[in-house]
Amino acid sequence: MQKIPAVITIPSNEMHERLNSILLQYGFTQKKALACAEVFTNNSVDGIYTHGINRFPRFITYIKEGYVNPGADPSLEHKFNGIEQWNGNLAPGICNAVFATEKAMELAQQYAIGCVTLKNTNHWMRGGTYGWQAAKTGFVFIAWTNTIANMPAWGAVDARLGNNPLVMALPFEDEAVVLDMAVSQYSYGALELSAMKNETLPVYGGFDTEGALTKDPSAILASNRPIPVGYWKGSGLALLLDLLATILSGGLATNEISRNNAEYGLSQVFIAIDISKLNNHSSVAKVIRDILYDYHRSVPEDTQKKVVYPGERVLLTRKNNLINGIPVLQKVWDEIMRL
Amino acid sequence: MQKIPAVITIPSNEMHERLNSILLQYGFTQKKALACAEVFTNNSVDGIYTHGINRFPRFITYIKEGYVNPGADPSLEHKFNGIEQWNGNLAPGICNAVFATEKAMELAQQYAIGCVTLKNTNHWMRGGTYGWQAAKTGFVFIAWTNTIANMPAWGAVDARLGNNPLVMALPFEDEAVVLDMAVSQYSYGALELSAMKNETLPVYGGFDTEGALTKDPSAILASNRPIPVGYWKGSGLALLLDLLATILSGGLATNEISRNNAEYGLSQVFIAIDISKLNNHSSVAKVIRDILYDYHRSVPEDTQKKVVYPGERVLLTRKNNLINGIPVLQKVWDEIMRL
Repeated sequence: MQKIPAVITIPSNEMHERLNSILLQYGFTQKKALACAEVFTNNSVDGIYTHGINRFPRFITYIKEGYVNPGADPSLEHKFNGIEQWNGNLAPGICNAVFATEKAMELAQQYAIGCVTLKNTNHWMRGGTYGWQAAKTGFVFIAWTNTIANMPAWGAVDARLGNNPLVMALPFEDEAVVLDMAVSQYSYGALELSAMKNETLPVYGGFDTEGALTKDPSAILASNRPIPVGYWKGSGLALLLDLLATILSGGLATNEISRNNAEYGLSQVFIAIDISKLNNHSSVAKVIRDILYDYHRSVPEDTQKKVVYPGERVLLTRKNNLINGIPVLQKVWDEIMRL
Repeated sequence: MQKIPAVITIPSNEMHERLNSILLQYGFTQKKALACAEVFTNNSVDGIYTHGINRFPRFITYIKEGYVNPGADPSLEHKFNGIEQWNGNLAPGICNAVFATEKAMELAQQYAIGCVTLKNTNHWMRGGTYGWQAAKTGFVFIAWTNTIANMPAWGAVDARLGNNPLVMALPFEDEAVVLDMAVSQYSYGALELSAMKNETLPVYGGFDTEGALTKDPSAILASNRPIPVGYWKGSGLALLLDLLATILSGGLATNEISRNNAEYGLSQVFIAIDISKLNNHSSVAKVIRDILYDYHRSVPEDTQKKVVYPGERVLLTRKNNLINGIPVLQKVWDEIMRL
């Protein structure tokens, strides 16, 4: 039997304070440190530990290595009505993405649909962050990012595709429905967390070094051969998301990003639609409620398990972690305390 | 051993002529009949028989039943800068979708990004049709449709989600890269064709009536339990595509469409981006070429099989079918000849 890693709980305000004070040591302005610490903390509150607290040490390493520039800000390169193309100037990916989401909403207010692209940006951590940001303000939101090559095309053995997370979100009552999916069956973050916890995956997540399908996350991390969602379908989707992110932003493609050893200088797309500009805007809230009502009437295969919509489980985790503190692997928190 | 169905070949001009003359009998204007026959023929030329010639008899049935109105045209319900919302008025889905794609491109020329939605429209047959249409004219294109409920949510046994095909396309040299994917592992069209040919699926496509995963297309058609791409991920994607199509168009959701016995009155979204309005427009063609060059350098698992991008295989099929004629199941052509 393998050892179960020790877990402690950290109150969200304590986590936020600690991350904020670390960021201030690394050249962040007070405003940026607060905003960035908030996103890392909220991602952890929402249970997305892989792109919250667990990822923070690597984020600091990237700053030390110069891949992420805390002093930089995005600059506008081009604007034509509903589209703005920005250069992220290698500023922190979170700050850039929050900014781009805001800008896309502003464009949508003016044009009904707005698209902001970012080149030379950095890992946005959890894509869902920006989905919640836009949807809670009343916008439909679609965004995606490319990544370093981390997944072979279907039928290939070498990783030339990114798993290019795709986000889709819309408002629902005071909250949101937020789909945040990497195009691999499991994100690298999820594989790393499962491996750290010595878990077995519920469905095949990739190949092992012998070329056999496996549910062992460590074996997939070793082979670098995760599988795309839906095999050839997710493979095609990953390629298209990279092509579109690259040409719409004028930034680097996955194959160019992959020439570096670290993942930086990414390309991202943020599309917002202002629901208030639609003919049917007054009935949208009811329509969403009706669709989700029908969805919840699904007959579950396991009567103990409710069928939930994307983002629904997050609300429970959020509530729980805000009351009881955020569960953090002891070794992760130890690392944070040493930063 | 099961009997292999007889296949004949029909020259594309003969198919086009035959379909055109049938449509003229069913109240199509000359212009609409030509356009509609052309799409059904081109889909077959491109090898998408499930949404080409094989689907034509059902299309005629839908006209006879009054689900599709050949005399109708779309009408504008609302416009706000980059977005137009149209009522499809139950006109033929192909005609409406060709029109909406054209309109989205016009909006994109004005606003850089344009979005057209259709409510009360009909099955667009092959979504890729509109991807090729837009991309070959120099646009980035993203579109999706909802469908009748034909797939259970992940974890559920009853079909409450549509498999809601998603299209993404962009120009590549004189042709295009076109991703056209239903969110189920196999589209119903693909399952029906495989069942008709008595084929076994290469990967699990759904559950049989006993609740076991199966590669038998007939068993999946019997259980009505195809699986989403990537299990819970495709399930979430299908829900979001329906939510977005419904609220953006002001049309019917999958659960409303499913109250009827037949699939009509769909909701669709068409987004076009005009590449010529981008800062980096002059380098886009080269960037696409470079990405696909790298993609093609993938090391195939099976050295006999080249790794291809979405739409690449279509070009070979197209060339072949234009030279040698379109392979058609004898029983399908017999049915066409009786119409």
